[in-house]
Amino acid sequence: MQEYQKTKLNRIKRGQNRATYDVEKINGILDAGFIGYVSYNFQGKAIAIPMAYGRDGNKIILHGSNANRMLTTLLEAKEMSMTVMHLDALVLARSGFHHSVNYRSATLFGSVQKIEDPTKKDAALKCFMEHMMKGRWDGIRPMHQKELDRTLVVEMTIETASAKIRDVGVQDEPEDYDLDVWAGIVPIKQVAEYPISDPVLKESIEIPSHVLDYYHQNK
Amino acid sequence: MQEYQKTKLNRIKRGQNRATYDVEKINGILDAGFIGYVSYNFQGKAIAIPMAYGRDGNKIILHGSNANRMLTTLLEAKEMSMTVMHLDALVLARSGFHHSVNYRSATLFGSVQKIEDPTKKDAALKCFMEHMMKGRWDGIRPMHQKELDRTLVVEMTIETASAKIRDVGVQDEPEDYDLDVWAGIVPIKQVAEYPISDPVLKESIEIPSHVLDYYHQNK
Repeated sequence: MQEYQKTKLNRIKRGQNRATYDVEKINGILDAGFIGYVSYNFQGKAIAIPMAYGRDGNKIILHGSNANRMLTTLLEAKEMSMTVMHLDALVLARSGFHHSVNYRSATLFGSVQKIEDPTKKDAALKCFMEHMMKGRWDGIRPMHQKELDRTLVVEMTIETASAKIRDVGVQDEPEDYDLDVWAGIVPIKQVAEYPISDPVLKESIEIPSHVLDYYHQNK
Repeated sequence: MQEYQKTKLNRIKRGQNRATYDVEKINGILDAGFIGYVSYNFQGKAIAIPMAYGRDGNKIILHGSNANRMLTTLLEAKEMSMTVMHLDALVLARSGFHHSVNYRSATLFGSVQKIEDPTKKDAALKCFMEHMMKGRWDGIRPMHQKELDRTLVVEMTIETASAKIRDVGVQDEPEDYDLDVWAGIVPIKQVAEYPISDPVLKESIEIPSHVLDYYHQNK
Protein backbone atom coordinates (compact mmCIF):
# COMPACT_ATOMS: atom_id res chain seq x y z
CA MET A 1 0.00 0.00 0.00
CA GLN A 2 1.45 3.31 -1.11
CA GLU A 3 0.65 6.26 1.14
CA TYR A 4 1.11 10.01 1.00
CA GLN A 5 3.44 11.29 3.67
CA LYS A 6 1.69 12.94 6.60
CA THR A 7 2.72 16.55 7.14
CA LYS A 8 1.27 19.39 9.17
CA LEU A 9 -0.60 20.39 6.02
CA ASN A 10 -2.50 17.21 5.25
CA ARG A 11 -2.62 15.38 8.59
CA ILE A 12 -6.22 14.88 9.72
CA LYS A 13 -6.77 15.66 13.39
CA ARG A 14 -10.55 15.42 13.83
CA GLY A 15 -12.09 12.02 13.09
CA GLN A 16 -8.83 10.17 12.54
CA ASN A 17 -10.74 6.88 12.32
CA ARG A 18 -12.15 8.16 9.02
CA ALA A 19 -8.84 9.35 7.62
CA THR A 20 -6.75 7.72 4.90
CA TYR A 21 -3.56 8.63 3.08
CA ASP A 22 -3.73 5.63 0.72
CA VAL A 23 -2.86 6.68 -2.86
CA GLU A 24 -5.17 4.14 -4.49
CA LYS A 25 -8.17 5.06 -2.32
CA ILE A 26 -7.59 8.76 -2.99
CA ASN A 27 -7.33 8.08 -6.75
CA GLY A 28 -10.63 6.18 -6.48
CA ILE A 29 -12.30 9.28 -5.02
CA LEU A 30 -10.80 11.46 -7.76
CA ASP A 31 -11.95 9.10 -10.52
CA ALA A 32 -15.51 8.89 -9.18
CA GLY A 33 -16.10 12.52 -10.22
CA PHE A 34 -14.75 15.32 -12.36
CA ILE A 35 -15.62 18.47 -10.38
CA GLY A 36 -13.10 19.67 -7.79
CA TYR A 37 -13.01 22.76 -5.59
CA VAL A 38 -9.80 24.63 -6.19
CA SER A 39 -8.93 27.25 -3.63
CA TYR A 40 -6.77 30.31 -4.16
CA ASN A 41 -5.89 33.55 -2.47
CA PHE A 42 -7.29 36.74 -3.96
CA GLN A 43 -6.07 39.85 -2.13
CA GLY A 44 -5.50 37.80 1.01
CA LYS A 45 -8.93 36.15 0.90
CA ALA A 46 -9.28 32.41 0.26
CA ILE A 47 -11.86 31.59 -2.44
CA ALA A 48 -12.94 28.15 -3.65
CA ILE A 49 -14.07 27.72 -7.26
CA PRO A 50 -15.56 24.54 -8.75
CA MET A 51 -13.48 23.30 -11.69
CA ALA A 52 -13.72 20.31 -13.99
CA TYR A 53 -10.54 18.21 -13.90
CA GLY A 54 -8.88 15.19 -15.40
CA ARG A 55 -6.37 12.85 -13.75
CA ASP A 56 -3.32 11.16 -15.25
CA GLY A 57 -1.37 9.31 -12.54
CA ASN A 58 -0.32 11.90 -9.97
CA LYS A 59 -1.18 14.81 -12.29
CA ILE A 60 -4.42 16.79 -12.21
CA ILE A 61 -5.34 18.68 -15.40
CA LEU A 62 -7.30 21.93 -15.28
CA HIS A 63 -8.02 24.36 -18.08
CA GLY A 64 -9.68 27.67 -18.70
CA SER A 65 -9.37 30.91 -20.58
CA ASN A 66 -5.95 32.57 -20.79
CA ALA A 67 -7.45 35.39 -18.67
CA ASN A 68 -8.86 33.11 -15.95
CA ARG A 69 -8.11 34.95 -12.67
CA MET A 70 -7.81 31.82 -10.58
CA LEU A 71 -5.55 29.87 -12.93
CA THR A 72 -3.20 32.81 -13.47
CA THR A 73 -3.07 33.39 -9.69
CA LEU A 74 -2.25 29.70 -9.10
CA LEU A 75 0.52 29.81 -11.71
CA GLU A 76 2.05 32.78 -9.90
CA ALA A 77 1.74 31.01 -6.53
CA LYS A 78 3.25 27.83 -8.13
CA GLU A 79 1.14 25.68 -5.77
CA MET A 80 -2.48 24.77 -5.25
CA SER A 81 -4.95 22.67 -3.33
CA MET A 82 -8.07 20.92 -4.61
CA THR A 83 -10.86 19.14 -2.77
CA VAL A 84 -13.25 16.56 -4.22
CA MET A 85 -16.20 15.23 -2.23
CA HIS A 86 -18.98 12.75 -2.92
CA LEU A 87 -22.07 12.75 -0.71
CA ASP A 88 -23.29 9.18 -0.13
CA ALA A 89 -25.99 9.36 2.55
CA LEU A 90 -27.76 11.38 5.22
CA VAL A 91 -27.19 9.74 8.58
CA LEU A 92 -30.23 10.45 10.76
CA ALA A 93 -29.52 9.64 14.40
CA ARG A 94 -31.70 9.72 17.50
CA SER A 95 -29.95 12.88 18.72
CA GLY A 96 -28.97 16.01 16.82
CA PHE A 97 -25.40 15.58 18.01
CA HIS A 98 -24.97 12.28 16.14
CA HIS A 99 -26.55 13.35 12.86
CA SER A 100 -23.97 13.08 10.12
CA VAL A 101 -23.45 12.33 6.45
CA ASN A 102 -21.68 9.52 4.69
CA TYR A 103 -19.15 10.83 2.20
CA ARG A 104 -15.83 10.36 0.46
CA SER A 105 -13.66 13.48 0.45
CA ALA A 106 -10.08 14.00 -0.75
CA THR A 107 -7.90 17.09 -0.45
CA LEU A 108 -4.79 17.37 -2.63
CA PHE A 109 -1.78 19.67 -2.31
CA GLY A 110 0.81 20.14 -5.01
CA SER A 111 2.82 22.21 -7.42
CA VAL A 112 1.37 23.86 -10.50
CA GLN A 113 2.73 24.46 -13.95
CA LYS A 114 1.46 25.66 -17.30
CA ILE A 115 1.50 23.17 -20.17
CA GLU A 116 2.77 24.92 -23.29
CA ASP A 117 4.24 22.21 -25.53
CA PRO A 118 1.54 21.64 -28.22
CA THR A 119 1.74 17.82 -28.07
CA LYS A 120 1.52 17.79 -24.28
CA LYS A 121 -1.30 20.35 -24.35
CA ASP A 122 -3.33 18.18 -26.74
CA ALA A 123 -2.68 15.09 -24.61
CA ALA A 124 -3.71 16.97 -21.46
CA LEU A 125 -6.99 18.12 -23.02
CA LYS A 126 -7.67 14.55 -24.17
CA CYS A 127 -7.01 13.29 -20.62
CA PHE A 128 -9.35 15.99 -19.29
CA MET A 129 -12.19 15.02 -21.61
CA GLU A 130 -11.72 11.25 -21.30
CA HIS A 131 -11.88 11.66 -17.50
CA MET A 132 -15.37 13.20 -17.86
CA MET A 133 -16.59 10.73 -20.49
CA LYS A 134 -14.53 7.83 -21.78
CA GLY A 135 -14.60 7.55 -25.57
CA ARG A 136 -15.69 11.13 -26.24
CA TRP A 137 -12.41 12.60 -27.57
CA ASP A 138 -11.82 10.53 -30.68
CA GLY A 139 -15.14 11.24 -32.42
CA ILE A 140 -15.25 15.02 -32.03
CA ARG A 141 -13.82 17.76 -34.24
CA PRO A 142 -10.13 18.29 -33.36
CA MET A 143 -9.11 21.56 -31.68
CA HIS A 144 -8.30 24.48 -34.01
CA GLN A 145 -4.94 26.12 -33.38
CA LYS A 146 -6.63 29.40 -32.39
CA GLU A 147 -8.73 27.50 -29.82
CA LEU A 148 -5.60 25.88 -28.40
CA ASP A 149 -3.95 29.31 -28.25
CA ARG A 150 -6.89 30.73 -26.27
CA THR A 151 -6.87 27.86 -23.79
CA LEU A 152 -4.73 27.85 -20.67
CA VAL A 153 -3.88 24.31 -19.59
CA VAL A 154 -2.53 23.80 -16.09
CA GLU A 155 -1.09 20.67 -14.55
CA MET A 156 -0.95 20.06 -10.82
CA THR A 157 1.49 17.46 -9.52
CA ILE A 158 0.02 15.92 -6.37
CA GLU A 159 2.68 16.13 -3.67
CA THR A 160 0.60 15.18 -0.69
CA ALA A 161 -3.03 14.41 0.00
CA SER A 162 -5.46 13.04 2.53
CA ALA A 163 -8.98 11.71 2.45
CA LYS A 164 -11.84 11.20 4.84
CA ILE A 165 -14.44 8.52 4.35
CA ARG A 166 -17.54 7.88 6.45
CA ASP A 167 -19.43 4.80 5.28
CA VAL A 168 -21.14 3.37 8.34
CA GLY A 169 -24.64 3.58 9.81
CA VAL A 170 -26.07 5.49 12.74
CA GLN A 171 -23.88 5.64 15.84
CA ASP A 172 -25.91 6.87 18.83
CA GLU A 173 -25.21 7.23 22.54
CA PRO A 174 -25.79 3.85 24.26
CA GLU A 175 -28.72 5.16 26.34
CA ASP A 176 -30.48 6.63 23.29
CA TYR A 177 -31.25 3.31 21.56
CA ASP A 178 -34.30 2.96 23.84
CA LEU A 179 -35.87 6.20 22.59
CA ASP A 180 -38.92 6.12 20.33
CA VAL A 181 -37.10 8.04 17.60
CA TRP A 182 -36.68 6.72 14.07
CA ALA A 183 -33.03 6.48 13.02
CA GLY A 184 -31.47 5.33 9.79
CA ILE A 185 -29.83 6.50 6.62
CA VAL A 186 -31.08 8.02 3.38
CA PRO A 187 -28.68 7.02 0.57
CA ILE A 188 -27.82 9.87 -1.80
CA LYS A 189 -26.27 9.54 -5.22
CA GLN A 190 -25.59 11.50 -8.36
CA VAL A 191 -27.23 10.01 -11.44
CA ALA A 192 -27.37 10.63 -15.17
CA GLU A 193 -30.67 10.82 -17.04
CA TYR A 194 -31.17 9.67 -20.62
CA PRO A 195 -29.15 11.75 -23.13
CA ILE A 196 -31.06 14.48 -25.00
CA SER A 197 -29.88 15.09 -28.57
CA ASP A 198 -29.28 18.69 -29.69
CA PRO A 199 -32.61 19.80 -31.27
CA VAL A 200 -30.78 20.79 -34.46
CA LEU A 201 -28.78 17.54 -34.73
CA LYS A 202 -28.92 15.87 -38.16
CA GLU A 203 -31.64 13.22 -37.94
CA SER A 204 -29.38 10.44 -39.20
CA ILE A 205 -27.02 10.70 -36.21
CA GLU A 206 -27.77 8.28 -33.38
CA ILE A 207 -26.62 8.56 -29.77
CA PRO A 208 -23.15 6.94 -29.81
CA SER A 209 -22.20 4.00 -27.59
CA HIS A 210 -19.79 6.01 -25.39
CA VAL A 211 -22.68 8.31 -24.39
CA LEU A 212 -25.10 5.42 -23.83
CA ASP A 213 -22.41 3.58 -21.82
CA TYR A 214 -22.02 6.65 -19.60
CA TYR A 215 -25.78 6.77 -19.06
CA HIS A 216 -26.02 3.06 -18.21
CA GLN A 217 -23.09 3.26 -15.79
CA ASN A 218 -24.50 6.31 -14.01
CA LYS A 219 -28.30 5.99 -14.20
CA MET B 1 -35.18 42.71 -7.51
CA GLN B 2 -32.61 42.95 -4.75
CA GLU B 3 -28.99 42.55 -5.84
CA TYR B 4 -25.64 42.21 -4.10
CA GLN B 5 -23.32 45.10 -4.81
CA LYS B 6 -20.60 44.31 -7.34
CA THR B 7 -17.10 44.78 -5.99
CA LYS B 8 -13.67 43.71 -7.18
CA LEU B 9 -14.12 40.63 -5.00
CA ASN B 10 -17.36 39.21 -6.40
CA ARG B 11 -17.60 40.71 -9.89
CA ILE B 12 -17.59 37.97 -12.52
CA LYS B 13 -15.36 38.72 -15.48
CA ARG B 14 -15.42 35.50 -17.53
CA GLY B 15 -18.83 34.47 -18.89
CA GLN B 16 -20.72 37.57 -17.75
CA ASN B 17 -23.82 36.37 -19.61
CA ARG B 18 -24.06 33.59 -17.02
CA ALA B 19 -23.53 35.84 -13.99
CA THR B 20 -26.14 37.00 -11.50
CA TYR B 21 -26.05 39.03 -8.29
CA ASP B 22 -29.77 38.54 -7.57
CA VAL B 23 -30.32 37.78 -3.87
CA GLU B 24 -33.36 35.54 -4.46
CA LYS B 25 -31.63 33.48 -7.17
CA ILE B 26 -28.56 33.05 -4.98
CA ASN B 27 -30.75 31.99 -2.03
CA GLY B 28 -32.39 29.46 -4.36
CA ILE B 29 -28.98 27.92 -5.11
CA LEU B 30 -28.15 27.82 -1.38
CA ASP B 31 -31.48 26.18 -0.50
CA ALA B 32 -31.13 23.50 -3.20
CA GLY B 33 -28.28 21.89 -1.21
CA PHE B 34 -26.64 21.79 2.19
CA ILE B 35 -22.96 21.16 1.40
CA GLY B 36 -20.75 24.19 0.79
CA TYR B 37 -17.01 24.53 0.20
CA VAL B 38 -15.54 26.86 2.76
CA SER B 39 -12.06 28.13 2.01
CA TYR B 40 -9.52 29.31 4.50
CA ASN B 41 -5.85 30.15 4.75
CA PHE B 42 -3.61 27.71 6.57
CA GLN B 43 -0.01 28.95 6.77
CA GLY B 44 -0.55 31.04 3.64
CA LYS B 45 -2.11 28.20 1.66
CA ALA B 46 -5.77 28.33 0.60
CA ILE B 47 -7.67 25.12 1.42
CA ALA B 48 -11.32 24.30 0.65
CA ILE B 49 -13.25 22.01 2.99
CA PRO B 50 -16.76 20.69 2.39
CA MET B 51 -19.11 21.69 5.22
CA ALA B 52 -22.80 21.16 5.87
CA TYR B 53 -24.62 24.47 6.34
CA GLY B 54 -27.98 25.98 7.14
CA ARG B 55 -29.37 29.32 5.94
CA ASP B 56 -31.51 31.82 7.82
CA GLY B 57 -32.03 34.96 5.72
CA ASN B 58 -28.58 36.41 5.05
CA LYS B 59 -26.93 34.19 7.69
CA ILE B 60 -25.13 30.91 7.01
CA ILE B 61 -24.79 28.53 9.96
CA LEU B 62 -21.80 26.18 10.27
CA HIS B 63 -20.79 24.01 13.17
CA GLY B 64 -18.07 21.66 14.25
CA SER B 65 -15.94 20.61 17.15
CA ASN B 66 -14.48 23.31 19.39
CA ALA B 67 -11.06 22.24 18.10
CA ASN B 68 -11.97 22.42 14.38
CA ARG B 69 -8.90 24.00 12.72
CA MET B 70 -10.85 25.64 9.93
CA LEU B 71 -13.59 27.16 12.08
CA THR B 72 -11.13 28.54 14.63
CA THR B 73 -9.00 29.99 11.80
CA LEU B 74 -12.09 31.64 10.25
CA LEU B 75 -13.06 33.16 13.61
CA GLU B 76 -9.59 34.66 13.90
CA ALA B 77 -9.80 36.01 10.34
CA LYS B 78 -13.34 37.33 11.08
CA GLU B 79 -14.31 36.73 7.44
CA MET B 80 -14.95 33.82 5.13
CA SER B 81 -16.05 32.72 1.70
CA MET B 82 -18.22 29.74 0.77
CA THR B 83 -19.09 28.23 -2.60
CA VAL B 84 -22.06 26.00 -3.40
CA MET B 85 -22.45 24.32 -6.79
CA HIS B 86 -25.01 22.00 -8.33
CA LEU B 87 -24.13 20.05 -11.47
CA ASP B 88 -27.14 19.83 -13.81
CA ALA B 89 -25.86 18.37 -17.09
CA LEU B 90 -22.92 17.41 -19.26
CA VAL B 91 -22.98 19.51 -22.43
CA LEU B 92 -21.44 17.45 -25.22
CA ALA B 93 -20.62 19.62 -28.22
CA ARG B 94 -19.26 18.81 -31.69
CA SER B 95 -15.85 20.26 -30.74
CA GLY B 96 -13.81 19.86 -27.57
CA PHE B 97 -13.67 23.63 -27.19
CA HIS B 98 -17.45 23.93 -26.72
CA HIS B 99 -17.88 21.04 -24.29
CA SER B 100 -19.26 22.39 -21.05
CA VAL B 101 -21.49 21.60 -18.10
CA ASN B 102 -24.77 23.07 -16.96
CA TYR B 103 -24.60 24.15 -13.35
CA ARG B 104 -25.72 26.59 -10.68
CA SER B 105 -22.88 27.97 -8.58
CA ALA B 106 -22.87 30.66 -5.88
CA THR B 107 -19.92 32.18 -4.03
CA LEU B 108 -20.56 34.13 -0.83
CA PHE B 109 -18.31 36.53 1.07
CA GLY B 110 -19.00 37.75 4.57
CA SER B 111 -18.13 38.29 8.19
CA VAL B 112 -17.95 35.50 10.73
CA GLN B 113 -18.85 35.32 14.39
CA LYS B 114 -19.19 32.66 17.05
CA ILE B 115 -22.66 32.07 18.49
CA GLU B 116 -22.37 31.70 22.26
CA ASP B 117 -25.77 32.68 23.68
CA PRO B 118 -27.46 29.33 24.56
CA THR B 119 -30.85 30.28 23.07
CA LYS B 120 -29.28 31.52 19.84
CA LYS B 121 -27.03 28.46 19.68
CA ASP B 122 -30.01 26.13 19.97
CA ALA B 123 -31.91 28.11 17.31
CA ALA B 124 -28.89 28.03 14.98
CA LEU B 125 -28.53 24.24 15.32
CA LYS B 126 -32.26 23.86 14.61
CA CYS B 127 -31.88 26.07 11.50
CA PHE B 128 -28.91 23.93 10.44
CA MET B 129 -30.81 20.66 10.77
CA GLU B 130 -34.08 21.90 9.28
CA HIS B 131 -32.11 23.13 6.24
CA MET B 132 -30.89 19.55 5.66
CA MET B 133 -34.26 17.90 6.37
CA LYS B 134 -37.41 19.82 7.18
CA GLY B 135 -39.28 18.38 10.18
CA ARG B 136 -36.32 16.47 11.63
CA TRP B 137 -35.51 18.65 14.66
CA ASP B 138 -38.71 18.37 16.70
CA GLY B 139 -38.82 14.59 16.99
CA ILE B 140 -35.23 13.92 18.05
CA ARG B 141 -33.68 13.85 21.51
CA PRO B 142 -32.78 17.44 22.56
CA MET B 143 -29.10 18.38 22.85
CA HIS B 144 -27.44 17.67 26.21
CA GLN B 145 -25.65 20.64 27.77
CA LYS B 146 -22.27 18.87 27.45
CA GLU B 147 -22.94 18.31 23.73
CA LEU B 148 -23.77 22.00 23.27
CA ASP B 149 -20.59 22.90 25.16
CA ARG B 150 -18.49 20.72 22.83
CA THR B 151 -20.05 22.23 19.70
CA LEU B 152 -18.71 25.34 18.04
CA VAL B 153 -21.45 27.19 16.15
CA VAL B 154 -20.40 29.84 13.66
CA GLU B 155 -22.58 32.33 11.82
CA MET B 156 -21.55 33.98 8.56
CA THR B 157 -23.33 37.17 7.55
CA ILE B 158 -23.42 37.33 3.75
CA GLU B 159 -22.06 40.72 2.72
CA THR B 160 -21.68 40.15 -0.98
CA ALA B 161 -22.12 37.26 -3.37
CA SER B 162 -22.31 36.28 -7.00
CA ALA B 163 -23.60 33.31 -8.91
CA LYS B 164 -23.07 31.71 -12.29
CA ILE B 165 -25.74 29.68 -14.01
CA ARG B 166 -25.46 27.78 -17.28
CA ASP B 167 -28.75 26.21 -18.30
CA VAL B 168 -28.78 26.08 -22.08
CA GLY B 169 -28.02 23.44 -24.68
CA VAL B 170 -25.04 22.89 -26.98
CA GLN B 171 -23.58 26.03 -28.57
CA ASP B 172 -21.21 25.09 -31.40
CA GLU B 173 -19.30 27.08 -34.02
CA PRO B 174 -21.67 27.83 -36.95
CA GLU B 175 -19.62 25.73 -39.41
CA ASP B 176 -19.58 22.69 -37.08
CA TYR B 177 -23.33 21.97 -37.25
CA ASP B 178 -22.72 20.13 -40.54
CA LEU B 179 -20.33 17.62 -38.96
CA ASP B 180 -21.38 14.02 -38.43
CA VAL B 181 -20.78 14.27 -34.68
CA TRP B 182 -23.49 13.57 -32.09
CA ALA B 183 -24.11 16.51 -29.78
CA GLY B 184 -26.50 16.90 -26.90
CA ILE B 185 -26.77 16.99 -23.15
CA VAL B 186 -26.77 14.34 -20.43
CA PRO B 187 -28.83 15.63 -17.49
CA ILE B 188 -27.25 14.98 -14.09
CA LYS B 189 -28.97 15.15 -10.74
CA GLN B 190 -28.52 14.19 -7.13
CA VAL B 191 -31.20 11.82 -5.87
CA ALA B 192 -32.22 10.16 -2.61
CA GLU B 193 -32.86 6.44 -2.40
CA TYR B 194 -35.43 4.82 -0.11
CA PRO B 195 -34.58 5.33 3.61
CA ILE B 196 -32.91 2.38 5.37
CA SER B 197 -33.85 1.97 9.05
CA ASP B 198 -31.07 1.42 11.59
CA PRO B 199 -30.77 -2.40 11.90
CA VAL B 200 -31.20 -2.15 15.68
CA LEU B 201 -34.24 0.17 15.51
CA LYS B 202 -37.21 -0.95 17.65
CA GLU B 203 -39.55 -2.83 15.32
CA SER B 204 -42.57 -0.73 16.25
CA ILE B 205 -41.05 2.49 14.88
CA GLU B 206 -42.05 3.33 11.31
CA ILE B 207 -40.27 5.70 8.93
CA PRO B 208 -41.72 9.12 9.83
CA SER B 209 -43.44 11.37 7.27
CA HIS B 210 -40.67 14.02 7.25
CA VAL B 211 -38.18 11.35 6.08
CA LEU B 212 -40.58 9.91 3.48
CA ASP B 213 -41.37 13.45 2.27
CA TYR B 214 -37.66 14.08 1.78
CA TYR B 215 -37.35 10.85 -0.20
CA HIS B 216 -40.35 11.64 -2.43
CA GLN B 217 -39.12 15.18 -3.10
CA ASN B 218 -35.61 14.00 -3.99
CA LYS B 219 -36.01 10.54 -5.54
